[in-house]
Amino acid sequence: MDPAPLPEFNDILAAAARIAPHAHATPVLRSRALDAMAGCALHFKAEPLQRAGAFKFRGACNAVWSLDDATAARGVVTHSSGNHGGALALAAKTRGIPCHVVVPDNAVLAKLAAIEAYGAVLHRCAPTIAAREAMCAQVQAQTGAELVHPYTDPRVIAGQGTAAMELLATAGALDVIVVPVGGGGLASGTAIAARALAPGCRVFGAEPAGAADTFESLRRGERVIDFVPDTICDGLRGSLGAPDFELLRTHRVEVLTVADDDTVAAMRLLWQRLKLLVEPSSAIALALVLGHHERFDGQRVGVILSGGNVDLDALPW
Amino acid sequence: MDPAPLPEFNDILAAAARIAPHAHATPVLRSRALDAMAGCALHFKAEPLQRAGAFKFRGACNAVWSLDDATAARGVVTHSSGNHGGALALAAKTRGIPCHVVVPDNAVLAKLAAIEAYGAVLHRCAPTIAAREAMCAQVQAQTGAELVHPYTDPRVIAGQGTAAMELLATAGALDVIVVPVGGGGLASGTAIAARALAPGCRVFGAEPAGAADTFESLRRGERVIDFVPDTICDGLRGSLGAPDFELLRTHRVEVLTVADDDTVAAMRLLWQRLKLLVEPSSAIALALVLGHHERFDGQRVGVILSGGNVDLDALPW
Repeated sequence: MDPAPLPEFNDILAAAARIAPHAHATPVLRSRALDAMAGCALHFKAEPLQRAGAFKFRGACNAVWSLDDATAARGVVTHSSGNHGGALALAAKTRGIPCHVVVPDNAVLAKLAAIEAYGAVLHRCAPTIAAREAMCAQVQAQTGAELVHPYTDPRVIAGQGTAAMELLATAGALDVIVVPVGGGGLASGTAIAARALAPGCRVFGAEPAGAADTFESLRRGERVIDFVPDTICDGLRGSLGAPDFELLRTHRVEVLTVADDDTVAAMRLLWQRLKLLVEPSSAIALALVLGHHERFDGQRVGVILSGGNVDLDALPW
Repeated sequence: MDPAPLPEFNDILAAAARIAPHAHATPVLRSRALDAMAGCALHFKAEPLQRAGAFKFRGACNAVWSLDDATAARGVVTHSSGNHGGALALAAKTRGIPCHVVVPDNAVLAKLAAIEAYGAVLHRCAPTIAAREAMCAQVQAQTGAELVHPYTDPRVIAGQGTAAMELLATAGALDVIVVPVGGGGLASGTAIAARALAPGCRVFGAEPAGAADTFESLRRGERVIDFVPDTICDGLRGSLGAPDFELLRTHRVEVLTVADDDTVAAMRLLWQRLKLLVEPSSAIALALVLGHHERFDGQRVGVILSGGNVDLDALPW
């Protein structure tokens, strides 16, 4: 389905140059209290402070600015449960081109409002992969817009890899980088960057126990995408992409599952200690570290906090 | 009651040097979306990222490191509904001396836990000024500890002034600085710093409508402290200090009141747009700006976001 070649480190370097005028180089945060709890030296890449509130802007921005002018003029289209949609909408806005976002009926309202605020056109559909892809194809046929898939597009994967590149540049040598795993774009980009910049650095993926398709796929050695997600991590409900599966296997990314309760506890800790609003899909990476002391003890650990688009309507005020 | 001389700008300079090895120089954050809503250029001093999660560490740290060795060895004592207690506890820890904190029965639990975690001894009392002061006197008599009042101590006021000093150094010329007003320590320190560093810069104080003793005191020209606070801003329930009253009058700080509903709305905006966890007592300053467009239109506005110690137990997760 996606015949594009797999992205390489050169593509991440090119992406970094391409997005530099538009994206933020987000800070790396530390916490003495969290280090003490985790028994290791944590370096948090603060992507909630990225434009549109998540790392997704990196990949979307790289894709949008990779297009030739004629293609760009017809606009872009994607399907997304939230953060990628907002990111693509804002990226399109930076280039002044149209953007269409196909969204599932069960998406988080705060994320939909953000997508519309950036000027994109929303197209609603049922919350299944088949429905999303059908609606996307329809919009493409009608508008000629370029599809920018949230995690299989090699331009997107390359863009996501710039977060790990910045993290390694700021934090110095790391023993491990831990990232959340949904469709696998961030994990894939991170693995490519780490291999090139810090060959001894392992990459761990944190996946919700209630959406453990990547864990299952790597265990079985074949892509398993027939599942119904059940997790508070609304950004990690997508199913593993084919190129992502190949990249995660090639780079020997180890995926571990995390229970939602542990993710929520980690989210509270991050709010409390970093004063950074992270969403559950980010906190899962810290939860993985706290749940596996034996793997990280005494090490220098990078954690990519992927986004901060929390649905504040769920709060009691 | 407090015969110490009023602090001057030289005291703020000395405080800045004294706390530099211990306190963070916090960043100044911007948001295009909030600028557009407010109609002015907002520069947010991010004190939730200060150690112990609030600007209070500045004043407490200055007081603790101002003591001679013999006095310091006997420890420090204060009464505080929360942030000052945590700040003094951490400041005492940086010097390795004992700390006693008298806390009212109705204090926020998250703040009490933080105070204890920093190694201070808690002493509980009824939530009245009289009860606090009596308990403080008792602890002083028993231990010989030095009283560090949360907002009348000139060492504390001078320390708080370092936040505005940093803000002006980072943001450049500002037309206005807006700060929350509780006991008046931050507003006083800010006014002294602004007068010296940016003579044309006005200082506004934002006070909860349900704890408007400072507003009333300035209006009547005499200190009015007989009131029962009723506000979500738990950090702003204290009553205006005598030296603070004198400083706010001298420096013509203008205090305006803000309804809690507007403060809560501003807090949501700050969480959403800055991804920074601010407490209601901080958000009130943005609420003041949003409620008075006519005063700030087109100006360069500094906003001191004072702290981020939110009681997460109030959240639904």
